[in-house]
Amino acid sequence: MRRILKKILKKSPSSNQDGVFFEKISQILGFKPNTLKYYEKAFTHRSANKLDEKGNPISYERLEFLGDAMLGSVIAAHLYNKVPTGDEGYLTKMRSKIVSREHLNELGRDFKLVQFVESKVNPSHFGDNIHGNIFEAFIGAIYLDKGFEYCEKFIHEKIIKQYVNIERLEGKVISYKSLIIEWCQKEKKSFRFDVFEDNGKEGIKYFGVKLFIDEEVVSKARATSKKKAEETASKRAFFALQDLIEKKQ
Amino acid sequence: MRRILKKILKKSPSSNQDGVFFEKISQILGFKPNTLKYYEKAFTHRSANKLDEKGNPISYERLEFLGDAMLGSVIAAHLYNKVPTGDEGYLTKMRSKIVSREHLNELGRDFKLVQFVESKVNPSHFGDNIHGNIFEAFIGAIYLDKGFEYCEKFIHEKIIKQYVNIERLEGKVISYKSLIIEWCQKEKKSFRFDVFEDNGKEGIKYFGVKLFIDEEVVSKARATSKKKAEETASKRAFFALQDLIEKKQ
Repeated sequence: MRRILKKILKKSPSSNQDGVFFEKISQILGFKPNTLKYYEKAFTHRSANKLDEKGNPISYERLEFLGDAMLGSVIAAHLYNKVPTGDEGYLTKMRSKIVSREHLNELGRDFKLVQFVESKVNPSHFGDNIHGNIFEAFIGAIYLDKGFEYCEKFIHEKIIKQYVNIERLEGKVISYKSLIIEWCQKEKKSFRFDVFEDNGKEGIKYFGVKLFIDEEVVSKARATSKKKAEETASKRAFFALQDLIEKKQ
Repeated sequence: MRRILKKILKKSPSSNQDGVFFEKISQILGFKPNTLKYYEKAFTHRSANKLDEKGNPISYERLEFLGDAMLGSVIAAHLYNKVPTGDEGYLTKMRSKIVSREHLNELGRDFKLVQFVESKVNPSHFGDNIHGNIFEAFIGAIYLDKGFEYCEKFIHEKIIKQYVNIERLEGKVISYKSLIIEWCQKEKKSFRFDVFEDNGKEGIKYFGVKLFIDEEVVSKARATSKKKAEETASKRAFFALQDLIEKKQ
């Protein structure tokens, strides 16, 4: 009896943890995962020294390879359909921009994936690429868990729609701020940035910005310069308003 | 009436051609295509100066980009599942070998895709890479026509099962001929190569080889040296007998 109780007690916190993990992952995915272990693997750093049931080491690196390939083919298909006039060179160049290390790091950071990393080393010591690496591994996990179509759906809904602006990538849009200002003027809407300063953890000064359109907050951002914060806030507003802007243009 | 007859007469040869093309493509695919125009595009060289209904130039180059991406992700998933002990570096290296220019050219040649090429220039002037390029474009066409799952199915059935031997790629197998000889000795089967010579079109000497196992022809090959022809015949026999060999080992 005591042994059974012990087992229950032992199992219970892990189940709770799984429950929280399941909920958080579902929220990011926009659908429910089938098999959590793929996602757990996507966040397991080599230093955690974990082994699978066959004794093979578990780490996100193999999934990163898989996710990179899936991301590459979904973006390829998107560009192929979206830009019927683009030749092979154009398509290759545009895909490189979308799946650049910098962009993948940004995505990983925005999805706050680093919170899930299991490692013997503090993830803050891994450098910036950890964000992009686990982001790719996460895509690989989606493929293993739900197949190509879900993987494609996730990349469309959560990445392409919200982060991929072809005109911007082509260099036609100079800044999102000018795009937002232009649109507000055209639509006869008032706009203003509300800026405040604060100090970050290591004494670094941050600028926080709120973008108001017709006196409503549409986006927020925080960066080490006022200009950067305004641009990021404008970018967020742009993607939030994208449908509206595209319809009006 | 005459105009209608003219129309019918005009249409008829093209329909017949489409019928032949449809049959040949179905045979290569192992299933029936839905939309032939994707496959037509996969074989249209830039020099044919064809335009689509919107006036955009048609050529296989854009499809090549798409097919390359699809092939890359299917091979990535195959390797991920097939070699659970391989790390990211191993997987990347193995994939590069499978999708090497040389290998893709071989595949394009074996599928005899060049017969479909539409061009103002004789395809023999394009050099060897035409085979690999249209092979990739063909994969792209399958994706557009039938979606990822069919694309994956085709790559598994027609490429991985018949051309991808991981041990060989790892350099563990020195030659297919020695593999076949070893297997025959182990299985107590007789084997012999039957060699004949002939002259090719431009006076080049060719060696034709038939491989007999237990006095039955299991494969044939033709090459510019006896050694090469025997190796190719052995390779074909190996893939034909693969299931059997793997079960017995």
